Amino acid sequence: MATPNAAPSERTRVRRLPDRARYDAENLAAIVDAAWIAHVAFPLDGGVHSIPTAVWREGDHLYIHGAKASRMLKALTEAECCVSLAILDGLVLARSAFHHSMNFRSVVVYGRFEIVDDAAHKAAALQAFTDRVAPGRWATLRPMTDKEMGATTVLRLSLAEASAKVRTGGPKDDDEDLAWPTWAGVLPLSLQAGAPQAEPDSAVDTPPPLPDSLAPSAG
Amino acid sequence: MATPNAAPSERTRVRRLPDRARYDAENLAAIVDAAWIAHVAFPLDGGVHSIPTAVWREGDHLYIHGAKASRMLKALTEAECCVSLAILDGLVLARSAFHHSMNFRSVVVYGRFEIVDDAAHKAAALQAFTDRVAPGRWATLRPMTDKEMGATTVLRLSLAEASAKVRTGGPKDDDEDLAWPTWAGVLPLSLQAGAPQAEPDSAVDTPPPLPDSLAPSAG
Repeated sequence: MATPNAAPSERTRVRRLPDRARYDAENLAAIVDAAWIAHVAFPLDGGVHSIPTAVWREGDHLYIHGAKASRMLKALTEAECCVSLAILDGLVLARSAFHHSMNFRSVVVYGRFEIVDDAAHKAAALQAFTDRVAPGRWATLRPMTDKEMGATTVLRLSLAEASAKVRTGGPKDDDEDLAWPTWAGVLPLSLQAGAPQAEPDSAVDTPPPLPDSLAPSAG
Repeated sequence: MATPNAAPSERTRVRRLPDRARYDAENLAAIVDAAWIAHVAFPLDGGVHSIPTAVWREGDHLYIHGAKASRMLKALTEAECCVSLAILDGLVLARSAFHHSMNFRSVVVYGRFEIVDDAAHKAAALQAFTDRVAPGRWATLRPMTDKEMGATTVLRLSLAEASAKVRTGGPKDDDEDLAWPTWAGVLPLSLQAGAPQAEPDSAVDTPPPLPDSLAPSAG
């Protein structure tokens, strides 16, 4: 993996505000782990497409999945793709419109997806995804059938060629604006879980524990 | 704009689970209005790129902005692009891993960006964006200078060629799994605002009102 301050390739080098860039595996992993949806850009039929899809991480790869028949999943293994994901952490209100900003963590990854063919690897990946939704959940479920496994394609993309961008903190106003009579600061934002909504016919009453990233203590 | 049940073009037609598709202007507008970040996919230098960026809507266009020097913004006007955005509304926990899902609202738009050149239009667009962050805020700010206006590029993309996809409700389990002894239901998720964090030297103590989409009553 890349060293913290160097881009792994020219196309991953952050050009705008490069002091916000991060290239180390630890930062990349933490940001992918905080995201639920990634946007997968790929070329197909002479055009560019971008499709939002669920994402998770194991080791130094990000994973996605879908129906075997999906034209997208097929296209992803046949060309270089670009995946981006972003977590919005706050709205940054400055004294001037120009210095308004957002606090965020984002990752952009380049590369070619590979299909996870090995049966044990595929099952482990789907278990990791399911247990991310609710820790330990996989073991409580009606087991996956061979037919369901066959209908599901799992793909992964190496995080080797990736960059992250992070903004934190308050507004960076011009010195001469600091006394301007308006409120300046940050409105923090985060994804929060509401009260679980059980199915009327749920055989179990107690909802599962929340994933770490959504637990109230994480806020 | 398209009629509710017909795709405006072949490339916008939702192929997977088409019953979740929406093509009408009202649904498209509401989903774009709920998003803060869009992912812009575009071709450049023989590859595909995807970059997360702030988004807002006015009428039947989505808007983005950036620094005038940005290579991305230039590329967006020179080729057909694809913009996707997604709002995660919940995790859907079924009795089988296969039927686990997410509730979400997403939009995918195809087209070519145009630069908003007209000075009044550009200022109005930036005001709309700023007032989205906090209603009425633009009027309280140190006015934008000509230099700042010149350094900022505003682009817009028509929503004419767009599709939305929406999933709501509980898990769709197989009938024979309904009695399986695990909790089934939805963990609702939403972006929530935390306590405003004022700058220590903010000249005004009272934070601005939250945008509609983040106000507690919207939950």
